Amino acid sequence: MKPSAILLISCPDQKGEVAAIADFVFRHGGNILHADEHADEESGLFLMRVEFDPKDFDIDLSHFNSAQFNPGQMAHSSSTQTGLSEFAEQFEPIATKFQMKWRLALSSYRQRAIIFVSKYDHCLVDLLYRQKSGELACDIALIISNHPDNQPIADFYKIPYEVVSVTKDNKGAAEAKIQSLIDQHRPDFMVLARYMQILSNDFVNRYPRRIINIHHSFLPAFVGARPYHQAFERGVKLIGATSHYVTEVLDDGPIIEQDVVRVSHRDTAEDLIRKGRDLEKVVLSRAVRWHVENRVLVYGNKTVVF
Amino acid sequence: MKPSAILLISCPDQKGEVAAIADFVFRHGGNILHADEHADEESGLFLMRVEFDPKDFDIDLSHFNSAQFNPGQMAHSSSTQTGLSEFAEQFEPIATKFQMKWRLALSSYRQRAIIFVSKYDHCLVDLLYRQKSGELACDIALIISNHPDNQPIADFYKIPYEVVSVTKDNKGAAEAKIQSLIDQHRPDFMVLARYMQILSNDFVNRYPRRIINIHHSFLPAFVGARPYHQAFERGVKLIGATSHYVTEVLDDGPIIEQDVVRVSHRDTAEDLIRKGRDLEKVVLSRAVRWHVENRVLVYGNKTVVF
Amino acid sequence: MKPSAILLISCPDQKGEVAAIADFVFRHGGNILHADEHADEESGLFLMRVEFDPKDFDIDLSHFNSAQFNPGQMAHSSSTQTGLSEFAEQFEPIATKFQMKWRLALSSYRQRAIIFVSKYDHCLVDLLYRQKSGELACDIALIISNHPDNQPIADFYKIPYEVVSVTKDNKGAAEAKIQSLIDQHRPDFMVLARYMQILSNDFVNRYPRRIINIHHSFLPAFVGARPYHQAFERGVKLIGATSHYVTEVLDDGPIIEQDVVRVSHRDTAEDLIRKGRDLEKVVLSRAVRWHVENRVLVYGNKTVVF
Amino acid sequence: MKPSAILLISCPDQKGEVAAIADFVFRHGGNILHADEHADEESGLFLMRVEFDPKDFDIDLSHFNSAQFNPGQMAHSSSTQTGLSEFAEQFEPIATKFQMKWRLALSSYRQRAIIFVSKYDHCLVDLLYRQKSGELACDIALIISNHPDNQPIADFYKIPYEVVSVTKDNKGAAEAKIQSLIDQHRPDFMVLARYMQILSNDFVNRYPRRIINIHHSFLPAFVGARPYHQAFERGVKLIGATSHYVTEVLDDGPIIEQDVVRVSHRDTAEDLIRKGRDLEKVVLSRAVRWHVENRVLVYGNKTVVF
Repeated sequence: MKPSAILLISCPDQKGEVAAIADFVFRHGGNILHADEHADEESGLFLMRVEFDPKDFDIDLSHFNSAQFNPGQMAHSSSTQTGLSEFAEQFEPIATKFQMKWRLALSSYRQRAIIFVSKYDHCLVDLLYRQKSGELACDIALIISNHPDNQPIADFYKIPYEVVSVTKDNKGAAEAKIQSLIDQHRPDFMVLARYMQILSNDFVNRYPRRIINIHHSFLPAFVGARPYHQAFERGVKLIGATSHYVTEVLDDGPIIEQDVVRVSHRDTAEDLIRKGRDLEKVVLSRAVRWHVENRVLVYGNKTVVF
Repeated sequence: MKPSAILLISCPDQKGEVAAIADFVFRHGGNILHADEHADEESGLFLMRVEFDPKDFDIDLSHFNSAQFNPGQMAHSSSTQTGLSEFAEQFEPIATKFQMKWRLALSSYRQRAIIFVSKYDHCLVDLLYRQKSGELACDIALIISNHPDNQPIADFYKIPYEVVSVTKDNKGAAEAKIQSLIDQHRPDFMVLARYMQILSNDFVNRYPRRIINIHHSFLPAFVGARPYHQAFERGVKLIGATSHYVTEVLDDGPIIEQDVVRVSHRDTAEDLIRKGRDLEKVVLSRAVRWHVENRVLVYGNKTVVF
Repeated sequence: MKPSAILLISCPDQKGEVAAIADFVFRHGGNILHADEHADEESGLFLMRVEFDPKDFDIDLSHFNSAQFNPGQMAHSSSTQTGLSEFAEQFEPIATKFQMKWRLALSSYRQRAIIFVSKYDHCLVDLLYRQKSGELACDIALIISNHPDNQPIADFYKIPYEVVSVTKDNKGAAEAKIQSLIDQHRPDFMVLARYMQILSNDFVNRYPRRIINIHHSFLPAFVGARPYHQAFERGVKLIGATSHYVTEVLDDGPIIEQDVVRVSHRDTAEDLIRKGRDLEKVVLSRAVRWHVENRVLVYGNKTVVF
Repeated sequence: MKPSAILLISCPDQKGEVAAIADFVFRHGGNILHADEHADEESGLFLMRVEFDPKDFDIDLSHFNSAQFNPGQMAHSSSTQTGLSEFAEQFEPIATKFQMKWRLALSSYRQRAIIFVSKYDHCLVDLLYRQKSGELACDIALIISNHPDNQPIADFYKIPYEVVSVTKDNKGAAEAKIQSLIDQHRPDFMVLARYMQILSNDFVNRYPRRIINIHHSFLPAFVGARPYHQAFERGVKLIGATSHYVTEVLDDGPIIEQDVVRVSHRDTAEDLIRKGRDLEKVVLSRAVRWHVENRVLVYGNKTVVF
């Protein structure tokens, strides 16, 4: 995979946007590798992802070394970095004209992730393997767990592992500890890989569209605890898993990916859990990969995955 | 397919049931073609379906010409027919010993169905085609609709078509009209093939496990009206369809079959409806076929499909 | 769905194509509704589909009333029609500069289809229903069959039905008869909906990328006759169906769509055929819909479905 | 999961088999937990799997501690073990009467596996994780590889790892080395988890139905080398993976499990490989689990998975 620059755009739908953007990239020497766009009729929004080869781009992006992950606004005003600031200056007229929110990312920049996990290790093990094998082009800066159990696998992959115990009485202190670890490791995003603790609204609101969760049901069915047991009780013929960005409302954030698998009366609740594990791994890892590759755009409570 | 006899059994799980049943069939000259059983650990129930070749069976079943569809009790006491009554007499000791609820069906008996439909015709057209092509081994006695629109396709397949208009003010009279049509055509079961009217609890309770509905969502997600629009709003990545027996509680009856199809941001609510039609057809027709082939056993609010 | 114009392009991959095309559409007053492109690394080809709203387009396309289906070349030189000729003239500089093959289509133009069928009617019945319900935005000009069996369903949908018997000895005459029917009805494309006769190479070569076939296996597995029986013999755990453009080599043309369904040891060869019917219907109808919506671009022996 | 005894039977289809077997189990105090049977019409074979609770079984099976994996014959005469020999003696009259091939297995016996692997580690990593997490109720006695690369993961899971280099010139010596490792570790079965060397016919024939392979295509499509590249060339819309028992003919043994995943023109050959890895892991691990749980019966070149 050659290095590429990815421009993500959201603006009111109107004539001439595609031409303006394609022309901008072309005039500055970029070669468009992929372009995807979506005009959402309900909201009147135009969403676009343009991936271009920056080799001959006449704005120097080589010093541009952050994820620019600012999805709340995707505002061009947020950066003073060399590279991005020049890009922002040049892109300004178009952005203003079309009222664009935008952000730019380089595929060569490796986003930094923190993985949260409790005892169930299948998603953690899966993510660590995929990261090491090159499937997930990000760095894993840290694993945070409320249990010591998964230290050995972290050691095997040489990832720092911090235990932050959570009890009824220390929730505030525990979250403060987590916050200090985040401040220290400065992740671009976080993954809740079957982390069984609820994070506070304050915490969640600090990282909009930057916390990816895996819920072990086909949302919005079976919100909350023990969804496989709920599914078993209801007698469904398929079970699912859902990966979504975390918001204040439990299991209600924008869905990134879902999948299902067939079950039958022969499957006990334990079989559902076993089958579900394979689903969870696949669904979460897809969501993380798309996030890392800057393919996910959120609008309202929905996502476009380009 | 050679003609077969199907024995459906439900009883408390205990030792020796399979042996007793298999021995009974064998002693009377039946050759077991398929046997399926399920021991449900939660409820302690044992469920079984035995299909046997009745050619050399020493109890004459040739006069036994009803569906014996009595799933509320599946009681052996309900029949006075030749064939079944002799079978019941012979089977009595085993049934009593193991506290069995049971029913017997012959594949040669063609169950009679009434299909209910409103304006959307895709499920109706699909069922009529499958019935005619031999895929559904039942007879369609009548189509009831609250609209005249689907008369032509009924005529093409030479099925009587009755329009029973339903308005806010005539619900009681309409249901009485429907009841009289049922009394006249004596169906073994009914299919709500996108019938958009709510049937009264009284009506529904009269035909437990004999009314099959198709709901256009992956239940229990998106209960009630306009599920595709609900799904579109929630931004799910898969949409589903669910076929279930109708009970008093809306969209809550025992699920017979479900399936899903992938959707993306490119799909409008209209695309979801189009994709959903294919799902609904397949899911409903599977449920009807399994019902017709006496493969569905209900226990609690769940089904076993053998 | 509002009317749209669709521009399909294929050319060597190079810088500035997207900008040139987007700018062209914009300068002439078109509003891009969807744009999709694919750069194929192996072949060095760039493929693009641009769908735009022609309402304010300053080139009058209102007289442009053909499918312009010329996929062998997609050459702009083939037309002398008002509308298209002006478009071609204006687009010429860009087309020449980038060595583009291209064609333009209007969604308002309804392509004309001829369906070929033998005795198995499931795909025919499915296509006729979908066409009538508005899912397939084409006209069905004629049904050709080597058997009279499907006349009634053709009559129901009021489509002309011509029987052209084919025997060992009359193949040449039969194909001449078919050719004269084609000359008379001038279809934009043809669909072999389980047509069990082999068409001659001469015939096939006359309609490159204009004949869509459904083969009842997951190609390239089980080429040729009785694929379900082949699949049954091999003991596969999934069976498939494949829709493809017809070329000289049997079952070897560019694949438009495929799908599979799970089977088990319980399924007899007859069950495979039944399950396969549902696959065939869905796979063929998707392929036809995508063809009708001008979503399919062929390159080499492969397709891009935009 | 409580311990169970599993009786696998194959014999000519005839009356009374189910009754005889069920009665045998019942008379000796066993409680049937699951019973599955299949009458294959083509071959006239009857296949059955009976799982029963041996707690009150009056034949002592507690000393019976081997897999009794003798699938070539499944002959009752092969054993002289306490437990099995008494069972064989008691079961003899039934087995003789119905010309049964049979074998008995205890779920409490943990089969021993040897895994073969080359450089690609995804299937190996997956199997080791599943085994450790309890999903695969077998022991992994040894990993054999023609490369040293996967030593670290073997060490992590504390499984012995033997490198047996294979070159053009040492094939005979390498296989002799492998044979001596097998003789030393006495596996019940072997798994080729992306092992890229061809085993000799002599070797393969020594272990009929005891070597499980994963092939990275939907067999019988794309036999042999580089199937993903073959699939990419052919332009298929789905790619697959197949797990099968190894026989003399390359990629032609009885299929245990297959699955597929959708691909599009956007997927490069590398994307196919990535998507395929997930398929291979799931398909191979299912096949191994079913084998370990004594669910697979081979007849002709096909399998029944009960």
